[in-house]
Amino acid sequence: MTINRQWLLAARPAGMIGPQNFEYAESPIPTLSAGEVLVKNLFLSFDPTQRNWMVDRPGYLPPVGMGETMRAGSVGQVVDSQHDDFAVGELVQTTGGWQDYAVVAPGQGPMGLTKLPAGVSPEMMLSILGITGLTAYFGLLDIGLPKAGETVLVSGAAGATGSIVGQIAKLKGCRVVGIAGGPEKCRWLKEQAGFDAVIDYKNADVNAQIALHCPEKWDVFFDNVGGDILEAALNHLNLHSRIVMCGGISGYNATDPVPGPANLMNLITNRGRMQGFIILDYLPRAMEAIHELMAWVAAGDIIYQVDLKEGFENIPSTLQRLYTGQNVGKQLLKIANPV
Amino acid sequence: MTINRQWLLAARPAGMIGPQNFEYAESPIPTLSAGEVLVKNLFLSFDPTQRNWMVDRPGYLPPVGMGETMRAGSVGQVVDSQHDDFAVGELVQTTGGWQDYAVVAPGQGPMGLTKLPAGVSPEMMLSILGITGLTAYFGLLDIGLPKAGETVLVSGAAGATGSIVGQIAKLKGCRVVGIAGGPEKCRWLKEQAGFDAVIDYKNADVNAQIALHCPEKWDVFFDNVGGDILEAALNHLNLHSRIVMCGGISGYNATDPVPGPANLMNLITNRGRMQGFIILDYLPRAMEAIHELMAWVAAGDIIYQVDLKEGFENIPSTLQRLYTGQNVGKQLLKIANPV
Repeated sequence: MTINRQWLLAARPAGMIGPQNFEYAESPIPTLSAGEVLVKNLFLSFDPTQRNWMVDRPGYLPPVGMGETMRAGSVGQVVDSQHDDFAVGELVQTTGGWQDYAVVAPGQGPMGLTKLPAGVSPEMMLSILGITGLTAYFGLLDIGLPKAGETVLVSGAAGATGSIVGQIAKLKGCRVVGIAGGPEKCRWLKEQAGFDAVIDYKNADVNAQIALHCPEKWDVFFDNVGGDILEAALNHLNLHSRIVMCGGISGYNATDPVPGPANLMNLITNRGRMQGFIILDYLPRAMEAIHELMAWVAAGDIIYQVDLKEGFENIPSTLQRLYTGQNVGKQLLKIANPV
Repeated sequence: MTINRQWLLAARPAGMIGPQNFEYAESPIPTLSAGEVLVKNLFLSFDPTQRNWMVDRPGYLPPVGMGETMRAGSVGQVVDSQHDDFAVGELVQTTGGWQDYAVVAPGQGPMGLTKLPAGVSPEMMLSILGITGLTAYFGLLDIGLPKAGETVLVSGAAGATGSIVGQIAKLKGCRVVGIAGGPEKCRWLKEQAGFDAVIDYKNADVNAQIALHCPEKWDVFFDNVGGDILEAALNHLNLHSRIVMCGGISGYNATDPVPGPANLMNLITNRGRMQGFIILDYLPRAMEAIHELMAWVAAGDIIYQVDLKEGFENIPSTLQRLYTGQNVGKQLLKIANPV
């Protein structure tokens, strides 16, 4: 193969994003300068925050420019190297984007360039040991500060991050209640992931169910969803509770601004704290989390699900799955096999 | 005088509260049991949170019952005592309520029973050195954690709490921007209280004015107001900013739930923290604040305003002044002079 297939940003989001926002293109495989590495992308990571990168407004990363390759986390293989620390054949994690080949350099880009630890598969690196697992780990433990005996409520609980959050909370001695969409996801959370209770937001009154399943209210709410679910949760917060603001996927594809919760003042009455975070800030501490997560996975204390698609042509439609709730666990897509 | 005049809660709030919510009554002056003290109320404190106490829902204090004396902070004089620590004639701070005489005991009621320090007037005790001053002090310093060189934005800035917040922030080396209603209040803040800039929300586009007066965005937002002003503020928060949720007076008298800010997710992008608090939690540490505030007042570093009304019959209408923005500084009402 001598061409570099790419998906470029072709239209800023307006409402639900999908293939119409992207344009297929081909370009020559780029050449390297000193210090650079040519990575062939093997697996792409799909993350709800990618939609935020497509919008032309200030964010925690610069917006993807119109006509630029769509940004995405990835695991790939070094196929050419002008950097002494990276050799052809090595597997690396980086922000390779929606293309076959990426020119990257250590210390550049939002996720830099790191080798996969021995024995770690691309699927593990992009889910439990990657941004997803780190988000769950640092968000819950550093921002949520759960204590044994407390109740932890998780929205988007069957998502890649939410399911890990709940399992870490269980390991810390908490009662864990998840909110997810549909009986299948809920069953998996209860029977496989060990959640104490699960609320199916598509088939139940979330407010009433939180009251039912959190008889002593909740102490930590790890929120991936925002909107109505955040408002329902805010009716049942305990004194000195903590809201970990991880995401607000319910509003990402709205065409008009979505009002916030009408009961925000409950944070005052209950001395609550609501705090946002961006996982990139924690990358210098990544190894703390990776070591502990690897040990938990090896011991069978944490399970994780990967929803794996294939085919370069399916990249745009795969991103959409995140916002329609179709993915079960971490959404990945395989472009190529390692050689 | 042998009767105890009282204002009782007669109707739960629906929309703007006013005299219609209260009923005048007279009862005999109560008699004391062992350990109790009879206090004649001299000055009543008016606080925005009093409306919350009138609503029949769980709060940080039990709701005032229908037909019960309206709860209020007060300074009074001991006129009879069955407690060794309190002598007739002493001035005390307590939660005396809307009545001439209150039976109180140390350690009982939300504010207990404490003597006024030597040289402290009732007006000082109920404003700069009381709940108002403590709210400003601990809210700003403990929750807001301002650092020299940072920008502190304050809503309800001409209010009793807000004006103290801004002045403490100046003493800590911050740039201080206030939001208040009307040119008179704004002028006082700028010319007398030393705010760096003031936004008149009644006569300007708050969003544009925050952008103008916070060229490096804000690091701490001390919010007494909520609603649209909170939403405007959330467009201009700095990385790692802190919102001190003190109150939401803009929504207190709404008949329907008021939606929260549509841009709450900015807290994620900017790693922001939004935290509520109730000053009663800080009462064990009150002397820390009182000593420092007294020193600042003595040195002329902090000024405060008292809006003093008189007359038992004017109590209900005086409470309403808080929600219509009529009060300038701390709203008090004098019932009687000390003997």
